[in-house]
Amino acid sequence: MMTEVIYTGNYFIGSRTELLERVSNQLSASRFAHICRVEKKALELAQRFNYSDLERVSITALTHDYAKERPDSEMIHYIETRGFDLSLISYGNQIWHGLVGAEIVRDELGIIDSSILQAIRVHTTGSEEMSTLDKIIYVADYVEDGRDFPVVNQARELAKQSLDLAVAFETQQTLLYLIENNHKIYPKTIDTYNRWVAK
Amino acid sequence: MMTEVIYTGNYFIGSRTELLERVSNQLSASRFAHICRVEKKALELAQRFNYSDLERVSITALTHDYAKERPDSEMIHYIETRGFDLSLISYGNQIWHGLVGAEIVRDELGIIDSSILQAIRVHTTGSEEMSTLDKIIYVADYVEDGRDFPVVNQARELAKQSLDLAVAFETQQTLLYLIENNHKIYPKTIDTYNRWVAK
Repeated sequence: MMTEVIYTGNYFIGSRTELLERVSNQLSASRFAHICRVEKKALELAQRFNYSDLERVSITALTHDYAKERPDSEMIHYIETRGFDLSLISYGNQIWHGLVGAEIVRDELGIIDSSILQAIRVHTTGSEEMSTLDKIIYVADYVEDGRDFPVVNQARELAKQSLDLAVAFETQQTLLYLIENNHKIYPKTIDTYNRWVAK
Repeated sequence: MMTEVIYTGNYFIGSRTELLERVSNQLSASRFAHICRVEKKALELAQRFNYSDLERVSITALTHDYAKERPDSEMIHYIETRGFDLSLISYGNQIWHGLVGAEIVRDELGIIDSSILQAIRVHTTGSEEMSTLDKIIYVADYVEDGRDFPVVNQARELAKQSLDLAVAFETQQTLLYLIENNHKIYPKTIDTYNRWVAK
């Protein structure tokens, strides 16, 4: 296990401990534990796949769910006033907390690094274009040690071999789950599928 | 079993026998048999759900796969020269033969009725908005008597109860099949899913 990432102040004005404190004020204890596990898994993936900016990884992991417990009314206000496509309103927090969450992280935590904000935006739906950081956060969120669903061990095995295979598997399984359970699908998820899964 | 539909000449200049002849020239024997079974099933659904224009049903059923055996090069030429979104080129005949097929049916068979052409367009992907004729053809194509796949009897049962339930089931099962088999998904299929399946 690696030692704790030391922050330089390049992306967040403050130490990791200060960021943890800011984030913990926004989240239930169980979600706070989740984002800490995502950080651990994301750092592990970064080291495995030679992504060297561990500070970016740590900050993205710790902030990716920053806005997940905000009331719908606040999220909708953001959508209506920040130039989002208004059709986004018909989706729920599951979609909003990434896309809108990136704006809230920028506003409230002063994090302006575009690669961090983009990885927060796409952490639930993936994207046609995904940077290594995007993939690390997307996969870490799915396979962190607290996750327990039928195919999680298969996902973990793939995440040892290849980020791209893990992205593909997660996207495919997530869609199957959504469709089997009659959940609405955000159209961008299909762009992710067509890019990373479809042959 | 109903008697054969008599054509009035309102939608196609010629008799049903003449249309059958024109269509059979375009299709393999097995596909010709399929479209005849779709006609039978579509007429059955129309009578069950009180759609009275059986001539429209017959013509749409018999022409819905009219362009399915055209070479890709011809389909791509249509896409490039008829104002289609060029991203359509990256999909295959499975998507093209409905959307482009409607244009070919209009050009070659002189059928200009917009409800017939629209039902041909959406017979594979469905659509957010679907007329009763659209639903009849979409469902008949899936459950006609020659079909044999694991859930076809479940689909047939639903098609006895409700066109909307049958549309929903077919859309859900088709997506699951495509995703399980890593096939590319045409984004409009998700609009169909979100309208007819998602809660």
